This record gives sequence, structure tokens and C-alpha cells, in this order.
Amino acid sequence: MPVNLSAPDPATLSAVAGVDLGTARAGIRKAGRRDMLVVRFEPGARAAVVTTRNRFCAAPVVVTREHLEATGGRVSALVVNTGNANAGTGAQGLADSRRTCEALAELLGCPVDEVLPMSTGVILEPLPMERLLGGLAPAVADLAPGHWAEAAEAIMTTDTLPKAASRQVVVDGVTVTLSGISKGAGMIRPNMATMLGLIACDAAIAQPVLERWVREAADESFNRITVDGDTSTNDTFVLAATGVAPVRVDDADAPAAAPLRAALIELARWLAQAIIRDAEGATKFVTVNVQGAGDPEEASRVAYAIAHSPLVKTAFYASDPNLGRLLAAIGYAGVEDLDVGRVDLLLDDVLVASAGGRDPRYQEADGQRVMSAPEFTVTVRLGRGDAATTVWTCDLSHDYVTINADYRT
Amino acid sequence: MPVNLSAPDPATLSAVAGVDLGTARAGIRKAGRRDMLVVRFEPGARAAVVTTRNRFCAAPVVVTREHLEATGGRVSALVVNTGNANAGTGAQGLADSRRTCEALAELLGCPVDEVLPMSTGVILEPLPMERLLGGLAPAVADLAPGHWAEAAEAIMTTDTLPKAASRQVVVDGVTVTLSGISKGAGMIRPNMATMLGLIACDAAIAQPVLERWVREAADESFNRITVDGDTSTNDTFVLAATGVAPVRVDDADAPAAAPLRAALIELARWLAQAIIRDAEGATKFVTVNVQGAGDPEEASRVAYAIAHSPLVKTAFYASDPNLGRLLAAIGYAGVEDLDVGRVDLLLDDVLVASAGGRDPRYQEADGQRVMSAPEFTVTVRLGRGDAATTVWTCDLSHDYVTINADYRT
Repeated sequence: MPVNLSAPDPATLSAVAGVDLGTARAGIRKAGRRDMLVVRFEPGARAAVVTTRNRFCAAPVVVTREHLEATGGRVSALVVNTGNANAGTGAQGLADSRRTCEALAELLGCPVDEVLPMSTGVILEPLPMERLLGGLAPAVADLAPGHWAEAAEAIMTTDTLPKAASRQVVVDGVTVTLSGISKGAGMIRPNMATMLGLIACDAAIAQPVLERWVREAADESFNRITVDGDTSTNDTFVLAATGVAPVRVDDADAPAAAPLRAALIELARWLAQAIIRDAEGATKFVTVNVQGAGDPEEASRVAYAIAHSPLVKTAFYASDPNLGRLLAAIGYAGVEDLDVGRVDLLLDDVLVASAGGRDPRYQEADGQRVMSAPEFTVTVRLGRGDAATTVWTCDLSHDYVTINADYRT
Repeated sequence: MPVNLSAPDPATLSAVAGVDLGTARAGIRKAGRRDMLVVRFEPGARAAVVTTRNRFCAAPVVVTREHLEATGGRVSALVVNTGNANAGTGAQGLADSRRTCEALAELLGCPVDEVLPMSTGVILEPLPMERLLGGLAPAVADLAPGHWAEAAEAIMTTDTLPKAASRQVVVDGVTVTLSGISKGAGMIRPNMATMLGLIACDAAIAQPVLERWVREAADESFNRITVDGDTSTNDTFVLAATGVAPVRVDDADAPAAAPLRAALIELARWLAQAIIRDAEGATKFVTVNVQGAGDPEEASRVAYAIAHSPLVKTAFYASDPNLGRLLAAIGYAGVEDLDVGRVDLLLDDVLVASAGGRDPRYQEADGQRVMSAPEFTVTVRLGRGDAATTVWTCDLSHDYVTINADYRT
């Protein structure tokens, strides 16, 4: 049951000038479901990506990096399949990914290195190439600017809902449109990227700006979510700009660019949070806010210690303000000289622990009230400095176990 | 359902000369269950401990450290309660722990700083002092050398079985007896110690030897297990030596001491593994063996990345050789320059992945066969150097969620 998330209303999704999307039912893993996506960009479009830091990164991640390096950011198309991650597949996996790009380049009449491949699904199994290649022509035949909702559906794995949204912002008097999709529900602890995410906009954005913004947007969004602490082999977040709209951003710091950057980050954050709202088995959406840290790294350690603790997450699931588990997680987060006597803990606005112990005014009924809601914020004040961070996570439920114990069967 | 573990047969548990144990039903959390333990040592006994590195360590951990520092290792008694951890309880918690020691010292006629307190149970709730103090006299009245099985029962929390074992070893022609107990089933990722563990022996062991051995034994046992990655606030492992048997160990490296040290480590390992066999919801006991690492720290990172991954652990639960999840965990363990092309992965003797991909000879039926057993070994060869480590862990099942979502209710 997703937490405060519903399927996107197609009427709220805007076409992005210079972007066509087409999907197909290739039967890669299951018959009859949309499992392939082709995105075609107008000539002149550019892209920048952040990809997983998992050393066992998937073949399409390797190929995407190679292609972008070769073209310096020029992009003509994306090809995405779900059902199979093409990871842990060695030389054959690389060959399969390259062959997929070649086949699509031929269909679209574009250079092969302007095609960026992405895959998601089961690891360590060979790509079913015949079915995958068979899906390319139908996906190309389906290309249209209005297919964002179908695109979001075509990249789902254990997601229960497609995730897509659009934003519009005025830059130098020109309306710029951004639309994006994301997917992912388990193996989510992106490290420089997410499972799969794409944001396209119709402004012209210079390559250095694009490359800076894709990193900044990831750091403010996909790099702050976690379901289970498992960093995927396939995490890829693509930011693409078609340049069809008559506006150009050459300087990331230009005042006119600020609203576009803000809209980009806001959209990336929405897409990232949507992954947590629809996380495997999630019944709660929890914001973990760590303040007063000595530096950003220790803020992050404390936030992820809480966000990854199976005991904290099962207490979230139970709506049980078993706050000792939160203190325990803070205590083992690796801040070696932490003075627990300065630590405060809040659930929304309820002060639970102060000066390292239960606050004398704290009533369990207040903690219970906050934790019974489907969304709440855990705030930790470390009393050490000015650094802060925010991480979004979910609870650990029976359904997480069911989904992951049964995933392949 | 514990994995290949049954309740200790009292006939296999040996009294240790100079050690009496008494339990009581104090009603600390639940009425009618054995929830307090007093251990009395002969005058002259010594102890050394390793305790949690959690910064939110419990009051009894603080008091135990203080007392041992004050006495230089002399110990007359332990007092242990279950049902309440006395952690996150601030100044009141410290006062309560000290008062408990005072009351027991008065009953036993020993110095207060020769009493070491331990608590385990719910965090962040005040100790029910009246009931706890009321349990001391009955526990003292119950003191007897033969009560090791009852002692193991009295320290249980979510454990389903008591954990106790004995060993005997001949040192300089004298038979030395070691008996030990442990407890813990969740919040288990000891960092320098375990939830609660005690090993007592009747040899005389010099304090420096005791202090070195307690660390070495913890490093070979309790510091190599994990259920959920949550380092407890109360972890304490006590090694006590009464000196009643006519044998003395002053030099840890003396050849005569070697069998005693070996027996100690073997017993500590048995007690630690028993915690994993009886871990919350466990249906599998899994040994993770990492070889060929560049240094011990990276071996440990890879082993714990596997042992903590919720996706790997749910695959263990499902007996599903979803080995891509194992490769993914190796890939994100933080070995930045890992060459995945040199990584091998085995399930028991089945070579699953070689040179970073699925081994051509691997048949899924073979992986399935290994993983269907209640115990198996995951071996990772990193191909980087000579360092190795072993960690013991369990699966993540529905019952883990049930137990931890319902713990306080």
C-alpha cells in the first residue's frame, strides 16, 4: 500500500518538446506487461547522468558511461528494459547491451553511441535477447510526446504504482517544461543515483551545467532515500535537455537559471520520495532529520543508522514509539566522541528525549499519536555543530519479507 | 524455530568450583518468569569484561566499568535482570543500578564495587526498583553451584531457548572447568561484546591474561555475529576465574595455557553461534567466509555487507539462490578499487560465480540444494590478498518482523 501516492493522472503530465516516448510488451520476464521503453530526443539534445557506485555495476551502466564519454553528452535515444538487470553477466552482458543499442540506432537512424541503455530486474541472469530485440520495433512505432504515463509504467519492477510528474517554470520569459519518471521499490540505497530516473526538459542547457545539475539534483533527492540499504547494481539517473524551447542556460549561476534549477531539484525530490512512498511493503513514509552535527558526514551516518535499523523500521511498522531503538541507533552510528547527554530526539513536534534520556514531559500517548500517522518526521539534535541532513525512508513490514522472499518465484 | 539448537541438557553442564548461581521470579516485566540472576564468586575471583561501544550505553554498563576499574578485577558477584535494559535512563538509571549493587552487597557481605550489574530488555523505561530489589533475597536464597541451566533461562529476552555449555580441559595435569551462558536474539551486532555473555572457570588466571583473553575470545566469537546490524546498548561479556582449582595462569603465552585458551575460545564461539541459531525468526544459520581480501577491514566490510543485506537475508529465508543480491552486496561494500573480474562466489562447495559472473558450470539446482539446508556457508574470494574473516548470521523472516513489531505489546 503506497503511502500518500497514487497513479499519475495523465492530464497532469506535460509533453516535453523534443521528446517522444514509446513502450512495448516484449515478454522479457512476464507475458503481457509493458516492459520496454524507448525515448527519442530531437537532434541536438544533451544528457548527463549519475550512475551507481556499486562495483558490480550492470553492463548497461558501463555502456551508458562509455557512450556519454564518447559523445560528450549528445543523446538521441534511451532504451530501457525491465525484468532483467543485465548485471553480473560479464562479457556476454556487455555484448548484449551493445547489440541492443545497435539495433535501436539502426531503427532510428542515429549513431550507436547516442543511444543510452538501461536495464532493471533480476541480477545474474542473461538477457533474453530475442524477446528484447523483438520489442524494439513496436516501441519505436509507439513513439509519441504524450506517453509519459506509459513510460513510467514500462520501467516498473516491484513498484506497485508508476511514478511520473511534470513541472513548468519561466526562464527569461519562456516557459520551460520538465517531466520525469522514476522506478524502484527495493534494493534502494542509491549512491550517486537511483534505480532508474529520467528527467527531460525542453530548454537548451550547456553540457557543464547539465553535468553539475544532475549531480546536485541527485544529491538533494535520490541520494537521500533508502529502503533497505542495498545499493543497486543498476542505479542510473538521466537528466536530458532537448533545446527545443527558445531558451539557453550556459551559466549554472545565472539568476535566470535559478527557477529552473529549483524546479529540477523539486521534481527530482518528488520522484525520489515517490520511490519511498511505494517502497516494498511500505506503510509509513518517514523523514529523518539530523541537526547539530559536527560535519555533514556524521549527520549522514546518524540519519542512515536510523533509516537502516531493522529494529527502528519494525517499530515504525508497529506504530510503536519504542524510542530506545532510535537512541541505540544514534549510539552506534559511529560518532565516537558523541556526548549523549546533549542529544535531543523529537517525533514531529513531540520532544521525546532530551539530554540523552526520556524527557520528563514526554507522554507515550503523544509519541503514539505521531507514529500512528502514515507520515512523520524523526528529528535528532546532536548538539555538536551546524551540519544537518535529511533522509527519507520507510518502515519494514511483513510485506517486505513476502515480496523479497517470493521475488523470483 | 532455532536452527540446530536445543535446550541445554542440565546433565552436560558442569559446576565451576567457586561459582554459585541463583535465580528469582521478580515480575520485572512479566509475572511468573525467571527474570533475575545472581552469581556469587569465591573470594579471590577475578573478572574481565568487554562491553558495548554503543555511545548510548546502559547504566549497568557504566557501573560495571567503574567497579572493575576500582577493584582492578576483583569480583564477588554479578546481578542480572531481564525485562528492562536500564538504558537511556539518565542519572536515575545510574542511581538505580548502584542501589541494586548496594542491596546485593549487603545481602552477600561483600564490597559494593565487587558487584557487577547487567540489564537487558526494553530501552528508555525506568527500572521497576521495588520488584527488582524484592527479587534479590530469593535469588540469593537459591544460590547453588548446579544452577547453570536456570541461570541461562533467567537472562533470556526474545530468546526461545536458554544457551549454556561447559568444557573441561587439562592444564598442568589439573582439570579446569569452564561453563558459560549467553542470551540475545535481536539488536545483535556486537561491537566488542555481545548482548550478555558469561564464562566462568575455576583456574586462577592473572588479571592481564584475563583481560587479554576476554578480548581475544570476544573477537573470535561474539564480535563475529550479526542478526540485524543493531549494536545493543547493553552488550556485556564477562570472563571470570575463581582460582579455586589448583592451577595458575600468569603468562598468556605459556604452552600449558594454550589448551585453556583454546577451550575458552571454542566455548565463546559456541555461545555466540547459539545466539544466531536462536535469532529472532531465524530459520537458517549462515556462515559468511570472505577470503583473499587486501586487509582484515575490507574482509569484514564485505562479510557484513552480505550479512546485513535485507535482500540477501530474505533470499536465505526463501532458500532462493538469488545470487545477484550477493554480488550486489559485495559490490557496495565499500572496497573502492575492487576488480569484480577476480571475484568468486561459492555456496558450500558449489562455484556459483567466477571472474565476476555466473560460472558456466553453475546449475541453479545445485545452488538450490545448498540453500535449502538449514546451515550453509557463503564463501567469497576477492582475489586481492591474504586477509580473511568469518561472520555468522541468519535469515530475515516474517517472524523477525512479527517479533519486533510486537515486542512491547
